[in-house]
Amino acid sequence: MIADLIIIGGGPAGYHAAELAAKNGLTTVLFEKRAVGGVCLNEGCIPSKALLHTAKLYDYAKGGAAPYGVRCDNPVLDYAAAVKRKDKVVKKLVAGIEASLKNAGVEIVREAAEIQGRTESGFTVSDRQAKNLLLCTGSEPVLPPIKGIEKALTNREILALTEVPKELTVLGGGVIGLEMASLFHSAGSAVTVVEMTDKIAGSFDRDISELLQKIYEKKGVTFKLNTKLDEITGTTLVSTGRRPAAAGNGFENINLLVENGAVVTDETMQTNIPGVYAAGDVNGKSMLAHTAYREAEVAVNTILGKKDKMEYNAIPSVIYTNPEAASIGETLERAKAKGTNAAETSLSMMYSGRFMADNERGEGLCKLVWDRDPQTAAARLIGAHMLGNPASEIISTLSAVLFREMTIGQIKKIVFPHPTVSEIVKEAVFHA
Amino acid sequence: MIADLIIIGGGPAGYHAAELAAKNGLTTVLFEKRAVGGVCLNEGCIPSKALLHTAKLYDYAKGGAAPYGVRCDNPVLDYAAAVKRKDKVVKKLVAGIEASLKNAGVEIVREAAEIQGRTESGFTVSDRQAKNLLLCTGSEPVLPPIKGIEKALTNREILALTEVPKELTVLGGGVIGLEMASLFHSAGSAVTVVEMTDKIAGSFDRDISELLQKIYEKKGVTFKLNTKLDEITGTTLVSTGRRPAAAGNGFENINLLVENGAVVTDETMQTNIPGVYAAGDVNGKSMLAHTAYREAEVAVNTILGKKDKMEYNAIPSVIYTNPEAASIGETLERAKAKGTNAAETSLSMMYSGRFMADNERGEGLCKLVWDRDPQTAAARLIGAHMLGNPASEIISTLSAVLFREMTIGQIKKIVFPHPTVSEIVKEAVFHA
Repeated sequence: MIADLIIIGGGPAGYHAAELAAKNGLTTVLFEKRAVGGVCLNEGCIPSKALLHTAKLYDYAKGGAAPYGVRCDNPVLDYAAAVKRKDKVVKKLVAGIEASLKNAGVEIVREAAEIQGRTESGFTVSDRQAKNLLLCTGSEPVLPPIKGIEKALTNREILALTEVPKELTVLGGGVIGLEMASLFHSAGSAVTVVEMTDKIAGSFDRDISELLQKIYEKKGVTFKLNTKLDEITGTTLVSTGRRPAAAGNGFENINLLVENGAVVTDETMQTNIPGVYAAGDVNGKSMLAHTAYREAEVAVNTILGKKDKMEYNAIPSVIYTNPEAASIGETLERAKAKGTNAAETSLSMMYSGRFMADNERGEGLCKLVWDRDPQTAAARLIGAHMLGNPASEIISTLSAVLFREMTIGQIKKIVFPHPTVSEIVKEAVFHA
Repeated sequence: MIADLIIIGGGPAGYHAAELAAKNGLTTVLFEKRAVGGVCLNEGCIPSKALLHTAKLYDYAKGGAAPYGVRCDNPVLDYAAAVKRKDKVVKKLVAGIEASLKNAGVEIVREAAEIQGRTESGFTVSDRQAKNLLLCTGSEPVLPPIKGIEKALTNREILALTEVPKELTVLGGGVIGLEMASLFHSAGSAVTVVEMTDKIAGSFDRDISELLQKIYEKKGVTFKLNTKLDEITGTTLVSTGRRPAAAGNGFENINLLVENGAVVTDETMQTNIPGVYAAGDVNGKSMLAHTAYREAEVAVNTILGKKDKMEYNAIPSVIYTNPEAASIGETLERAKAKGTNAAETSLSMMYSGRFMADNERGEGLCKLVWDRDPQTAAARLIGAHMLGNPASEIISTLSAVLFREMTIGQIKKIVFPHPTVSEIVKEAVFHA
């Protein structure tokens, strides 16, 4: 039998595409040699968030709740129990996805996939055939050529630790590095973050990065910017980035176009080969789980003959430190570098009454970036950057706003509930 | 001197209008006999949220953190300290508003306002004159005719308590009643909620109301539905609603039209008298602080000659229990009663990985209500109802969505960050 679609890789792109395709009537085969859910669910986004929630509660127990009138004695973090719970959460979610895939009628093949080649009727992968192929092989950690790098932990190993290391060096101050620095600092490790560039938090707005660093320095985390390590000594997390898993799986057997280590895709997620699509980290475009979901939808819709295309201008990013940082769209720096006349509004989170109620002596920042619409000349939001809880949950409002390309005048008319931290957006708009 | 605008009442409608008017060049006089910020800031939204945050932390200390691997001994709630901190937060916010008003050039008159009448050049209020008048006198608690009602506490008194009562009866299971029940249950009171109707949470979706009640019953709160009290005995909060403060202040001296106890306004917030506007609780339309803000903007924009009008279809409501409930737009019940063919999607919050990570054994619900657009036949979101933290912060995304009248197809293309609780909206859309 020739299936409609074979998907290689059961991470966010793969499992979402599989369910969507099968629900829409495509016979769908999903190859996944490990657990469905991919890195994100099994050794990334979800397990880290479960442990970070524990860390936040431990911070409160250790005295963080005192300014609010709540005290207790002998705070204990049972880290092994927290890890066990984290594993249980992951297991439940994996089981949930497997059940959804089964309900939708997806066939899961639990082995490594090998593309054999192209035939007249489609593609052969291991012993299966399909008319269309969707590559969702994800990404893998980049390991820089440093002496002793083989002893370093990646996201996979650090999330499996059942004891808290006394000291932890975090190599790379990006999203993963900062989240793990936050987790293990709260859990009791002496943490040093070593970052090669002159700022933490990757492409985040510089003011946000600097305030986040300041907050963590106050807590006791050490940062070494503009610094490279000569040798790995002691417990070290390597979080210097990830690269697309754009080789192996027989990719070479179909002459797939790979540039700069990523599978090349167009706006419908199609590769250079008609009928072959790539979604998620493997195409290297944005390397975030929620981008993967959306790319998966675009690929499946295209296969189904529904008009759809991928747009990358309204994709949020989050760093789940405490406080959280969240960002979407352009920073003023990038917008100006593109030659625009963009402007920004920057406001302390203390302008939100709810933020003050929930954050004693809390610091936070909300920045909105504006540009004139070339047609109407109305000021339009092109970016938003926030530091303060729960930025991760608030930024989705800005996703909707950027997606609809809303102007200042329109955003002013959105009614934000009072009192919420999300009102900071309204405040910032009124200060624009 | 004849001012451009006199505003009576410095609550959310009044202070927001005053700042906006003054910033836009109107000479503005604000009458407020008590602290600026009104009931909301001084004895409502903000102080309750500060104390509810304390309550949440105390719940964690009392054992709520144990499932996450965090334990401690001898948890203590220093309620007096929490109240002191709450007062400090309120004080800071009041000071912030006063500073903003001063910066904008608003003149604050710290006395009760009395409208003397209308002259050819405008209106006379106490010893001042202005071309336009904006009434923002707010609302006051309704006290039902029950024996002993004079001994009952209103929101003002209950938020000023410095000790936790052993037993607390809450008369009225609406927003204020439930928030206070939640606060004092966590703080250690034995709480009974007495509600006249057959459900708690007022106009909230019935499933949400019932699940919220179930969650609080499990915690140990007693609910008596379909029940009236004959007599107030013991510590009792009366939270049976609020009514517009639509009398006094010389309203009668200008023949202001008042119907059903509320000042009548049109979509520009103008009353029956040209030049006289009313915003906030006093017009009885929605009686929420964020409605008041928006109405204030509409009134000021109208005075400034800028085209604007008030719409009430995308105004969220929140109950800050733990978990929070949030709602916007139509429930299925109301939509059907209006004769539409609306349909709904109902999904457990456990479909969100972040919700699972943050809520061990947590229950929650997300309901979306759809209707066909009469012109395009596309399914359009007309309501959303949620139970689960942080619903208060997520609902603003739905404010944006409802404001822009988005369809299922459009909402599907919004990229929600992963993993967040806000993704439940995306999940629900894909299940629609």
